Amino acid sequence: MSAALPPLHSLDPIGPGHRVTLGETLPLKLDCGLDLGPYQIAYTTYGKLNADRSNAVLVCHALTGDQHVANVNPITGKPGWWTTMIGPGKVIDTDRFFVICSNVLGGCLGSSGPKDSDPSTGKPYGLRFPVITIRDMVNAQAMLLDHLGIQQLFCAIGGSMGGMQVLQWAASYPERVFAAIPIACAAKHSAQNIAFHEVGRQAIYADPQWHKGDYFEHNTIPRAGLAVARMAAHITYLSEAALHRKFGRNLQNRERITYGFETEFQVESYLLHQGSSFVERFDANSYLYITRAMDYFDLAGQAGGVLANVFQGTKTRFCVVSFTSDWLFPTTENKEIVRALNAAAANVSFVEIETDKGHDAFLLDEPVMFATLQGFIDGCAEQRGLNGRSEKGGRA
Amino acid sequence: MSAALPPLHSLDPIGPGHRVTLGETLPLKLDCGLDLGPYQIAYTTYGKLNADRSNAVLVCHALTGDQHVANVNPITGKPGWWTTMIGPGKVIDTDRFFVICSNVLGGCLGSSGPKDSDPSTGKPYGLRFPVITIRDMVNAQAMLLDHLGIQQLFCAIGGSMGGMQVLQWAASYPERVFAAIPIACAAKHSAQNIAFHEVGRQAIYADPQWHKGDYFEHNTIPRAGLAVARMAAHITYLSEAALHRKFGRNLQNRERITYGFETEFQVESYLLHQGSSFVERFDANSYLYITRAMDYFDLAGQAGGVLANVFQGTKTRFCVVSFTSDWLFPTTENKEIVRALNAAAANVSFVEIETDKGHDAFLLDEPVMFATLQGFIDGCAEQRGLNGRSEKGGRA
Repeated sequence: MSAALPPLHSLDPIGPGHRVTLGETLPLKLDCGLDLGPYQIAYTTYGKLNADRSNAVLVCHALTGDQHVANVNPITGKPGWWTTMIGPGKVIDTDRFFVICSNVLGGCLGSSGPKDSDPSTGKPYGLRFPVITIRDMVNAQAMLLDHLGIQQLFCAIGGSMGGMQVLQWAASYPERVFAAIPIACAAKHSAQNIAFHEVGRQAIYADPQWHKGDYFEHNTIPRAGLAVARMAAHITYLSEAALHRKFGRNLQNRERITYGFETEFQVESYLLHQGSSFVERFDANSYLYITRAMDYFDLAGQAGGVLANVFQGTKTRFCVVSFTSDWLFPTTENKEIVRALNAAAANVSFVEIETDKGHDAFLLDEPVMFATLQGFIDGCAEQRGLNGRSEKGGRA
Repeated sequence: MSAALPPLHSLDPIGPGHRVTLGETLPLKLDCGLDLGPYQIAYTTYGKLNADRSNAVLVCHALTGDQHVANVNPITGKPGWWTTMIGPGKVIDTDRFFVICSNVLGGCLGSSGPKDSDPSTGKPYGLRFPVITIRDMVNAQAMLLDHLGIQQLFCAIGGSMGGMQVLQWAASYPERVFAAIPIACAAKHSAQNIAFHEVGRQAIYADPQWHKGDYFEHNTIPRAGLAVARMAAHITYLSEAALHRKFGRNLQNRERITYGFETEFQVESYLLHQGSSFVERFDANSYLYITRAMDYFDLAGQAGGVLANVFQGTKTRFCVVSFTSDWLFPTTENKEIVRALNAAAANVSFVEIETDKGHDAFLLDEPVMFATLQGFIDGCAEQRGLNGRSEKGGRA
């Protein structure tokens, strides 16, 4: 495995961003029943908040994402994970909007999580960190917005687990979200998705270097187990068609098969790289916590089992986006959200985008997605009384 | 993990079956270039071979299957894996046909594989066993048929990797296969399927108890790694709909979620059971070898890249079966076989069966599959001049 990068816990994950301590006076009441406070949230911002504080856009990141959405990532040295969507003149135009992205609670890029020191012991929390939920993540983000003096978001947007957070925002704080864009997600995590997450967790538990979560005390990390977890998950982010197009049965640096157990096919090499690079940037315990948060997500369960109840009376404008080849959060699950929103008489657009790129399409160059969201955002901005698009112009 | 069963390598896996030593005079020429011989093949038979030896049916098993197709499995104590299909009065009627099923070369239920002692060292082969292919498995089966004095099979049948063997039989020995029934398979292993196999292999490699394949010398087995491999694979054998129907988001022995990392959902408990029971019955190195054999399978590659060439001039009658909810070997891949057979002017039927049970549907109670195969087999038997169905009657 690659050892080119220094270990995650020796780096400053904040990079060009900020970190704030919250919950000092009033703690965060977690779904598990515990109070958390003080705790820290790391975040980045782009653009300027306007005078009436009406142009804020909250970007919610996915399972292994982070707050470095449009700046160079200080851990990997790579561009931010959504530079296709966010920046000057882009769909989420940083010349027009004040964009905020925070590392989720339980994460490992500067927000409080299992990697942090437990003040009561001086050692990393490990599994002693309280179990968190998507709603806890959103409540922490709401306290960050309070801190920033932002009463209402112009828009909350995110894909995958980011989309779950967007839905939770609209459910928990309808008056604080003018427009909501949940992409490639679901209102509850399916049995198959729980199963894939459990495989990943079991791979981590199976690694003796995990030490029941206390690996930092043993000066190690469960590298092999976390890599296997990432490899299994990564397959689910793509589509069979994309894997076939990219790799097919092509061999890795050889003309013919060698009849052995070394890396033989390009798709194997690709997966191995996904696994080994992931362990350089992500904490194994955070992976456990965040997958668990997704598994627990069941928005209807917060309202007597009826999803439409969650959104009753909402004034938020929704744009739900799915992808034809996404088998992790297939269109049927996105449509359940749309059906519930319609049943709640909400203002909702829905677009299923034709692509063979699978679940990860939301991170990629998808012109139809950009055009759809540009139109939706422009319309909402007009309704919100925001100035027109920046003079630099957008993609369209 | 359960330790109720004695360890695999202490049991007699032959049970009610037979084992024969082959390749003593002429070795088996493996695709990897090595010669193998003598080697052993364990097999079971059911029913009686008729006077003109024209009623033999070869059943080919899948990745983790074995020769105990219709008798109690001596390792698990459970019924054979295809008792829905095979037995007196069943679709493959043991009152009518002489049914043979052999453990594949490289397997762990009595046929030569990495678990065996290497005569040159007296220690288990481990990774020193030669890498094998689907064609090697089939060539070994052909030598078994020679030994049994059977020139032509009435029928070769199998699902998944069993279907790959059926296709290879029809390609390598067209004159020895009167009828061929490949179910839920493909003429080549896809990039996505190679990827899932590689995850499983990496989970085994990651287990320190694997000892680079020499675990028996360390008096251990890579239990945790093999269990993770099985869990990941098992998800691919089902469908999202089946998982939803069976488990949904139901909790395991509790009324509400407990906010922790213990088994919380029924689907997690089910997966854990699949993993822990698998390691009691299967050898980790065999898992490596057999997944590799599937990954290497590319029938068209044996004939200049054109699948139809493989079947040119064949007189074998084919019945190709796929399942609507099988995403491991989707209908599109089964149809590629049908297209090639049509291009080769072969006699071919194709049925896509509507079911939500996923890939494993071929092992389950699927009345439409039974009716389809009953009709196909009856028609072929008539053409072959075999007696009518047994007086006990079949399913129809």
